[in-house]
Amino acid sequence: MPGSSFGKLLVLSTFGESHGPAIGGVLDGFPAGIKIDEDFIQSQMDRRKPGQSKISSQRKESDQVQILSGVFNGISTGTSIGLLIPNNDAKSKDYDHLKDSYRPSHADRVFQQKYGHRDYRGGGRASARETAVRVAAGALAAQIIPKVKIQAYVSAVGPNSLDPALDLDLSQIDAHISRCPDAATAAIFEEAILKARKSGDSLGGIISCRISGVEPGLGEPVFDKLHANLAKAMMSINAVKGFEIGSGFAAAKMKGSEHNDTYNDRGERTSNNAGGVEGGISTGADLFFRVAFKPVATIMQDQQGLNSEGEPEIIKGKGRHDPCVVPRAVPIVEAMAALVLADHYLLNRSSKI
Amino acid sequence: MPGSSFGKLLVLSTFGESHGPAIGGVLDGFPAGIKIDEDFIQSQMDRRKPGQSKISSQRKESDQVQILSGVFNGISTGTSIGLLIPNNDAKSKDYDHLKDSYRPSHADRVFQQKYGHRDYRGGGRASARETAVRVAAGALAAQIIPKVKIQAYVSAVGPNSLDPALDLDLSQIDAHISRCPDAATAAIFEEAILKARKSGDSLGGIISCRISGVEPGLGEPVFDKLHANLAKAMMSINAVKGFEIGSGFAAAKMKGSEHNDTYNDRGERTSNNAGGVEGGISTGADLFFRVAFKPVATIMQDQQGLNSEGEPEIIKGKGRHDPCVVPRAVPIVEAMAALVLADHYLLNRSSKI
Amino acid sequence: MPGSSFGKLLVLSTFGESHGPAIGGVLDGFPAGIKIDEDFIQSQMDRRKPGQSKISSQRKESDQVQILSGVFNGISTGTSIGLLIPNNDAKSKDYDHLKDSYRPSHADRVFQQKYGHRDYRGGGRASARETAVRVAAGALAAQIIPKVKIQAYVSAVGPNSLDPALDLDLSQIDAHISRCPDAATAAIFEEAILKARKSGDSLGGIISCRISGVEPGLGEPVFDKLHANLAKAMMSINAVKGFEIGSGFAAAKMKGSEHNDTYNDRGERTSNNAGGVEGGISTGADLFFRVAFKPVATIMQDQQGLNSEGEPEIIKGKGRHDPCVVPRAVPIVEAMAALVLADHYLLNRSSKI
Amino acid sequence: MPGSSFGKLLVLSTFGESHGPAIGGVLDGFPAGIKIDEDFIQSQMDRRKPGQSKISSQRKESDQVQILSGVFNGISTGTSIGLLIPNNDAKSKDYDHLKDSYRPSHADRVFQQKYGHRDYRGGGRASARETAVRVAAGALAAQIIPKVKIQAYVSAVGPNSLDPALDLDLSQIDAHISRCPDAATAAIFEEAILKARKSGDSLGGIISCRISGVEPGLGEPVFDKLHANLAKAMMSINAVKGFEIGSGFAAAKMKGSEHNDTYNDRGERTSNNAGGVEGGISTGADLFFRVAFKPVATIMQDQQGLNSEGEPEIIKGKGRHDPCVVPRAVPIVEAMAALVLADHYLLNRSSKI
Repeated sequence: MPGSSFGKLLVLSTFGESHGPAIGGVLDGFPAGIKIDEDFIQSQMDRRKPGQSKISSQRKESDQVQILSGVFNGISTGTSIGLLIPNNDAKSKDYDHLKDSYRPSHADRVFQQKYGHRDYRGGGRASARETAVRVAAGALAAQIIPKVKIQAYVSAVGPNSLDPALDLDLSQIDAHISRCPDAATAAIFEEAILKARKSGDSLGGIISCRISGVEPGLGEPVFDKLHANLAKAMMSINAVKGFEIGSGFAAAKMKGSEHNDTYNDRGERTSNNAGGVEGGISTGADLFFRVAFKPVATIMQDQQGLNSEGEPEIIKGKGRHDPCVVPRAVPIVEAMAALVLADHYLLNRSSKI
Repeated sequence: MPGSSFGKLLVLSTFGESHGPAIGGVLDGFPAGIKIDEDFIQSQMDRRKPGQSKISSQRKESDQVQILSGVFNGISTGTSIGLLIPNNDAKSKDYDHLKDSYRPSHADRVFQQKYGHRDYRGGGRASARETAVRVAAGALAAQIIPKVKIQAYVSAVGPNSLDPALDLDLSQIDAHISRCPDAATAAIFEEAILKARKSGDSLGGIISCRISGVEPGLGEPVFDKLHANLAKAMMSINAVKGFEIGSGFAAAKMKGSEHNDTYNDRGERTSNNAGGVEGGISTGADLFFRVAFKPVATIMQDQQGLNSEGEPEIIKGKGRHDPCVVPRAVPIVEAMAALVLADHYLLNRSSKI
Repeated sequence: MPGSSFGKLLVLSTFGESHGPAIGGVLDGFPAGIKIDEDFIQSQMDRRKPGQSKISSQRKESDQVQILSGVFNGISTGTSIGLLIPNNDAKSKDYDHLKDSYRPSHADRVFQQKYGHRDYRGGGRASARETAVRVAAGALAAQIIPKVKIQAYVSAVGPNSLDPALDLDLSQIDAHISRCPDAATAAIFEEAILKARKSGDSLGGIISCRISGVEPGLGEPVFDKLHANLAKAMMSINAVKGFEIGSGFAAAKMKGSEHNDTYNDRGERTSNNAGGVEGGISTGADLFFRVAFKPVATIMQDQQGLNSEGEPEIIKGKGRHDPCVVPRAVPIVEAMAALVLADHYLLNRSSKI
Repeated sequence: MPGSSFGKLLVLSTFGESHGPAIGGVLDGFPAGIKIDEDFIQSQMDRRKPGQSKISSQRKESDQVQILSGVFNGISTGTSIGLLIPNNDAKSKDYDHLKDSYRPSHADRVFQQKYGHRDYRGGGRASARETAVRVAAGALAAQIIPKVKIQAYVSAVGPNSLDPALDLDLSQIDAHISRCPDAATAAIFEEAILKARKSGDSLGGIISCRISGVEPGLGEPVFDKLHANLAKAMMSINAVKGFEIGSGFAAAKMKGSEHNDTYNDRGERTSNNAGGVEGGISTGADLFFRVAFKPVATIMQDQQGLNSEGEPEIIKGKGRHDPCVVPRAVPIVEAMAALVLADHYLLNRSSKI
């Protein structure tokens, strides 16, 4: 089935495996007349690329995006944008031992069951390498909605969490390699990740995202609620296990009289438990949501997996992996959010005459 | 924009407002040759309909679904299925006072901002009444995949939660009006809901869903991951604020060595932290996910809202509402799950030659 | 598969069989704020309905459309519009003999082959009765683009054609029951149709369509060329076998130096061989296309068909059919054109910033 | 708007301009387990590429397709297939004079009107160069349905037509550079094209297409009729002005008693006026359709166009163009047909249980 496309009016279709010659995609429905900031695109790529810090995978990819069409003399033409990112540092040899082996909590086995034939090198299509294309496309999408400011950051790593009472300075997100804006917490996160790496283990984490500058009216009443599409966008990122918006799971514990975002005497909402959406439509308040990532499945420890005959088999951790994905996943979350918001921005143009 | 459709090969398109003459929809892509069990459809409708117990809204709707096409002599013909559910007990007078008023945490204001003109009666299109069509369609969808067993139940109401250590007998879900399968907890839930009603307040809650009998291979690697589409489906239900699958948000706190679903010596997975999906594709293990609902926004207390001039205005609670939606939302969760699974079942037919 | 939907931003999904209780549909993506002219809708329905003249089928259907949602106080709300048209004069008895018989050039046999189970009454889903919903939806779509004037008319009936050199007065289309605007030719067409009826036979014909007031820029460069979507729209109407735009098949015989629409000294195109589209995008000139209809397959003569055992069987003409569909198909062509143009009008809103 | 995608389950998304660095696309929904014949793909590319004979454009493009993903060890994996075709011989200098000029019957002016900014080099996105990607994708699609034989050929060039009474040997299509299977007529076509080139003019033409081996049941009853999707596919090819299936426009002149495909005493259809579809669904008989192409707009003669100020301007023919596109368009027609048929083949897998 065609599951490699995302969006309705702004549609990203991606291709590519972890160890093929290149990954890439087509971003279709991008409006004409937008001056393209290629530096911004590359800067987002650099935030996602491996090898960027001591807490990330040591695979070396320059991740230079080639824009092959849809932009002429630096301005978008309204036609589909071709994106190409060569794979330079694919070490396929690292994966020969996986031809007939299924790693635990990886997609190896289900791919084999579903398709009967798979590219086993580095996770193939299931590799998070695919998200590099999303980051490029998201950085383009963000340029459709320049007033919208999307800021994701790491708010938990393993059992350690950012104190929700802290007053965060979101300009400091990239001041720390863990992409946590609070210096003290960032240090804890980084230490935890380094410790996990040393012990050959991995850690889960949470990314929070705050989006300001969203005009009221984006999102549609029934199935295409803004937060429903954000949820799908985030849950489609590798390793994500949960999504919540505004009050989220905490809402379940509350009374209506506590949870309702009532108005004060100046006609302003006194709270934003909604997280910026009412009835699936943006209110104009900040969007706020959280995304839970499981720990990376590849660890540098022996684990019992399965072979293609259905027999248990010890799998040894190989390859170059992140001990914790959330620092590098921050630009991916931002990219998916930008794709959703730009799409809904375009869709909303037809909501009234 | 066309946001009233859901699905790729099995597509539900709905229409209808809370206080219009009828709601309904078209279910397209339903395969031919399926003997339709209309009793099952109606039984699911009855589980959702208002007025079913002392803890639900007292609006009286028989919610008899008319199947207008696509079924001939009791068997599906492969053509689109027309669904119609008349609105019988719409008391629009209850809503006249809302013409120029925006209730807090309702969609009144954003609809006005988005469309400039709205049907203010009973929430109009934003009303959860629309979900009746989903329940009918979901009950049809379930008949495409008879081996799949979808069982949702209430696992939290306000601050009260089902003990996760309990061994649940899911055959007892409907033995209690709260749709919690454990008798003792069900009693607590019901008491909490009645107490909330008495105090003119409302409560949030959580629905858990377990799905067994899903063959391996459903779901697609990239954007159309099975759990991404489930997340969108659930987040599109009124009042939902969070979704998690398998280990969910708890995964964020874990190490890879704890979280990985390794295999035992018989070649079986020893855990299901995945919640039944790896790489977005069903593993054959039970799907397990949880959905968080906020407390109903309408409460029988005075609250400060806004009028159409942007001035604060006291809104009095009127209309017939549920103090807690989760008991009635159980069949809605099941319906959306059935739509997603039946769609992916059909989509998977083209995954290999 | 879900083949009962049409459009991208303005999406019509239909349901219903010829002899079921009702036909109908959902028109989704209709912008808010449009004052709905229900009289215009009904007048288009009346132009399509059977029994309207001595040259049409004598089935009696009032074809009163019920608008069940999406319009409040006479103005569109931006939410999906539910459409319902009851079947009043379905005489299913006329079709009992077709349960195990396949009429020549009807869809009976292929439906049985495709689905294994079919509603054989009156063609079931393959009946042109379905087009009544298209006419209602098209009349709504036309109200999104009030400056666009869509005028279809009959330009050929069997071997008789309207002289292309005639200067037509398109206000006279409905002055004649054949819907040919030229009185003399209309008389010839009507006589030919009556003669065909008398001899128990049927006739094919051609509908021409001229559309003025289309702004430049509608249509997309590659697959969604305006005329490609018009072609699909028209070819999806029952009995249509051919479509051409502008110079059409005659273009194949021409030289570039003859065919090119060059500019005169005032900067105006001196011809419109393009038929109003260049590169799939509207030029602002009138759109002009022609649609070929085959003769109605049901004739009041014995013909050799097939039975469900694969044996030849004499089929007798029964039921109430048109000897020539083109007069009644005029509003169907207009409706499909309106759906395409309104959709592209909305889509074009996102073509530039 | 996203108009660069085609198909429902087998979806081709293309990108690329005539004079950018490369064109390419993503073919998504391709089933796993198909041994890919790359020679066949390249052979179809070679049939389309410029410079292949004395009657085609002299632009030199090797048109080597790179398959970047979705195929592993020569077998499809079920994941999206990335396609890349570098532009080697783009002579953009030839087009500098067109920056502020609109050629007659080209898309220059409408692109400017629609987008406000365009890549004017060689027609940009409106160039038929984009169809190279379609040919590659179509050659892949054909491998999904190996029993289906798609054979297109040139049946008219300018005023010269293939005699319909001839008994054609379709194995001879490529024996002649005009791709007309009849030697005598092929000679006439080639002479006509050479004569047009010499006079600096161009010619239109017709491509006929016969498809055998199509199982009954492909196509859907209402909007997605097989021939409606074929019509859209063909009309989306550059320069196409008309489409007809089976009896086509000739059907309009016929009586039902002549046109109906009745059965003989052996239960076989005695004719195929339907062209292989009844009610939009394949009958199992050969599909037969015809596609009309206008003469190429670029001619080597002075013509009056327009400049960007709206003033008339003499346009001189430059660039390397075909005097008649139909010989090179044969593989494009076949490719689009293969995409439609493979898509409907996959879609039909969900038509019954």
